Amino acid sequence: MNKASVRLTTSMLILAGMALMSLLISAANGAERRPNFVIIYADDLGYGDLGCFGHPTIRTPHLDRMAGEGLRFTQFYSASPVCTPSRAALMTGRLPIRSGMCSDKRRVLFPNSGGGIPADEVTLAEALKAQGYATGCFGKWHLGHLPQFLPTNNGFDTYYGIPYSNDMDRLNDVGPQGRAAFWAPKIEYWNVPLMRGTEIIERPADQTTITRRYTDQAIEFMHSHKDEPFLVYLPHSMVHIPLFRSDEFAGKSARGLYGDCLEEVDWSVGQVLQALRDLQLDEQTLVFFSSDNGPWLSYNEQGGSAGLLKDGKGTTFEGGMREPTIAWWPGHIEPGRVTQELGSTMDIFTTCVTLAGGDVPADRVIDGVDLSPVLFDAGPSNRKSVLYYRGTQLMAVRLGPWKAHYFTQTSYRKEGNPREAHDPPLLYHLDHDPSERFNLNEDHPEVLAQIDALVAEHRQHLDPPRSQLEIPLAGAGD
Amino acid sequence: MNKASVRLTTSMLILAGMALMSLLISAANGAERRPNFVIIYADDLGYGDLGCFGHPTIRTPHLDRMAGEGLRFTQFYSASPVCTPSRAALMTGRLPIRSGMCSDKRRVLFPNSGGGIPADEVTLAEALKAQGYATGCFGKWHLGHLPQFLPTNNGFDTYYGIPYSNDMDRLNDVGPQGRAAFWAPKIEYWNVPLMRGTEIIERPADQTTITRRYTDQAIEFMHSHKDEPFLVYLPHSMVHIPLFRSDEFAGKSARGLYGDCLEEVDWSVGQVLQALRDLQLDEQTLVFFSSDNGPWLSYNEQGGSAGLLKDGKGTTFEGGMREPTIAWWPGHIEPGRVTQELGSTMDIFTTCVTLAGGDVPADRVIDGVDLSPVLFDAGPSNRKSVLYYRGTQLMAVRLGPWKAHYFTQTSYRKEGNPREAHDPPLLYHLDHDPSERFNLNEDHPEVLAQIDALVAEHRQHLDPPRSQLEIPLAGAGD
Repeated sequence: MNKASVRLTTSMLILAGMALMSLLISAANGAERRPNFVIIYADDLGYGDLGCFGHPTIRTPHLDRMAGEGLRFTQFYSASPVCTPSRAALMTGRLPIRSGMCSDKRRVLFPNSGGGIPADEVTLAEALKAQGYATGCFGKWHLGHLPQFLPTNNGFDTYYGIPYSNDMDRLNDVGPQGRAAFWAPKIEYWNVPLMRGTEIIERPADQTTITRRYTDQAIEFMHSHKDEPFLVYLPHSMVHIPLFRSDEFAGKSARGLYGDCLEEVDWSVGQVLQALRDLQLDEQTLVFFSSDNGPWLSYNEQGGSAGLLKDGKGTTFEGGMREPTIAWWPGHIEPGRVTQELGSTMDIFTTCVTLAGGDVPADRVIDGVDLSPVLFDAGPSNRKSVLYYRGTQLMAVRLGPWKAHYFTQTSYRKEGNPREAHDPPLLYHLDHDPSERFNLNEDHPEVLAQIDALVAEHRQHLDPPRSQLEIPLAGAGD
Repeated sequence: MNKASVRLTTSMLILAGMALMSLLISAANGAERRPNFVIIYADDLGYGDLGCFGHPTIRTPHLDRMAGEGLRFTQFYSASPVCTPSRAALMTGRLPIRSGMCSDKRRVLFPNSGGGIPADEVTLAEALKAQGYATGCFGKWHLGHLPQFLPTNNGFDTYYGIPYSNDMDRLNDVGPQGRAAFWAPKIEYWNVPLMRGTEIIERPADQTTITRRYTDQAIEFMHSHKDEPFLVYLPHSMVHIPLFRSDEFAGKSARGLYGDCLEEVDWSVGQVLQALRDLQLDEQTLVFFSSDNGPWLSYNEQGGSAGLLKDGKGTTFEGGMREPTIAWWPGHIEPGRVTQELGSTMDIFTTCVTLAGGDVPADRVIDGVDLSPVLFDAGPSNRKSVLYYRGTQLMAVRLGPWKAHYFTQTSYRKEGNPREAHDPPLLYHLDHDPSERFNLNEDHPEVLAQIDALVAEHRQHLDPPRSQLEIPLAGAGD
């Protein structure tokens, strides 16, 4: 035997040893239960509205504690600045343009919509159910209100909540007219249905107790399924207008009604995390907190604040799509970390499916990436870019710290906000200039070229289906 | 003895017992050393620039830890939106209009100014020196550069620092002209003197190492005076433009040069707190962190961010005067609290003098209040109002959550910013609307009346002396 062959043999032994180690580790991991997932989603929450994101008068001790025990993301995005598309992306790990869950004519689904999440989309609940997970949804769905579109026909074992936004089904003959109804909201002004499974169990839903009831139902579900892996999706209806909170939170916040409602959502987070501790499931459960889009600025004090970010809901400025996000998993996520790495609600899909031992669907484009390296501090994010769609229009693209706006349009429902095209695109360095104040497009043509190339590549793999949001309900006018 | 007299006797016994207890407690406290005070002051720092105040890309782990171990103030104010008046107020506990340390003609003191802090003003250092404290100042003074105005002639045993702002003494024949010098600053563009006591020891000051050197000098002072009560005043020159940091911090922050400089100030805070722990003085030392005024927005990326607050330096909107403030005193301040109670840098004066066992001067109006109830969670703040002066003009008044703007004027150095008078004043509810977006003056005449009364009362006790800022240096042009 010459020296080369000895070395070869040694390498082979090392490789064999590594393979054996890897097997043993897999076996050990196999013995561990796969993690539970809890996704708590707020509605229309501003980037600047939590205590740990700098709000001066809203108290969020439970979310602040969650951040202190977990990982706070400062650059985490939804996939759309409005509700239905954003939630479709969370549930599928795909841009809404791929599922038809966006439109330039109707921003979201309405009670007179006939469309919803297509049957051939694989929801997070379906993907996890295939891995043996128990799945429950407690809150606002907004991916179609006809039976075939409801959670229990899209992978969830259990559903308790409202099928669309809490400001829909306005009874125009009740209470003050127009926006005045929102300034002093009463339950009876909106004929919103509360559903269990596919049945309406209460109408109008008593929205004053709805945050509490979603929470109780979610916790009851965790108790019932404590011995098997589970997914709890808890999309609160708050802090979307009209704002409602229970008596316990009335007048509690220095921030007024909006603060009361958000402090009740914060209470809910505290209840859920405490339930996990009580069940001794805290070290077996990955919890995400985020929101569907930015604050609804045109509702004045009843809307939230994007903090230092520009604009809000409905826009593709940072205030519209960057969300205050926290991940929590004691024993797995190092406590008190803050990350500037990029993440998206679509990544929650891929991360959860992967951690559950499954594979994301291979027959379609999945836009989510596995966030494990960021969660477990093992390296940079797999996400390098963010695509900012408004309806079917790609408005802006982030690549690393750079954001190029091909089009801009100011606040949703603000007057005088035509869509403006920019050629060359406006270019901002978001790490230096998070408020999008200083256009640098003249100085960095090479960055614009990189972003143009990314857009061209993106468009090669894009085949938008019919918009679900434009399908009318049979017999309903638009 | 009837029942009433029995009750009386019992009450008297209880009162006597309480008096005895109180005496015993006082005796025990007397045995304890009076607390040291450390005041770390940043320059032109924005309300939204710290991690714990929500900045997405600036990392301030030491300040975040300080907040986690101490008390974070979300509604704490400086007494002026520019440098000299703000620092005069911190040092005297008095509005700058009372000491002549403000002007409508010259915002601050300049190298060609002949004025400074009047001899008859009692500085915090003088008040604490009278109580036997050792006193050191390490950093930017800006209360007069002639010998009689320097720290060592105003109560400080030791001074090491620069006498005015780090952008003064511009050598106009060196480097790029105008604002371009700030975009890529070099030490030699500014002929700023570094002083020890009343002597210039370096000129131009090497500003790249200045944050580190102030810190080292302050820590050395604490070591030398560890066996006696001390005051350390550490007013950093950063993050005022031109921005400089040491090699260790070059390129360290995702936020760019501004972030690098602020992260070095954060490092300094970490060094100071660690030195106190090492000296076993942490439980004997009350530390404040704050800033003189809001971010200098007109310097683009080289200026900071006021977060969700409106406008910045030079203005009497919230962004100009609300400061990111933290108080720290292990064993005395409950860790991790956040307070919405009002505070002012002038209150630091009164609080420190009181905790040192002294009395604030009785022969003049003192605007500072004792913050002890807030610090020790013993009740609401003694501060109920905030007066917003720009030069000698009272622009706005906060009373509880309400702020009335009698005058408004946008950013310092922005074009097209005339002073606008408002009658009735604009009225904002800052707890509900921290960004000053929704004027409610038509709805709340009763609040305006209360604020008018407060202003009338304030003016009865106002007797402004000659402005120190308008006194020219003998032989110097203006």
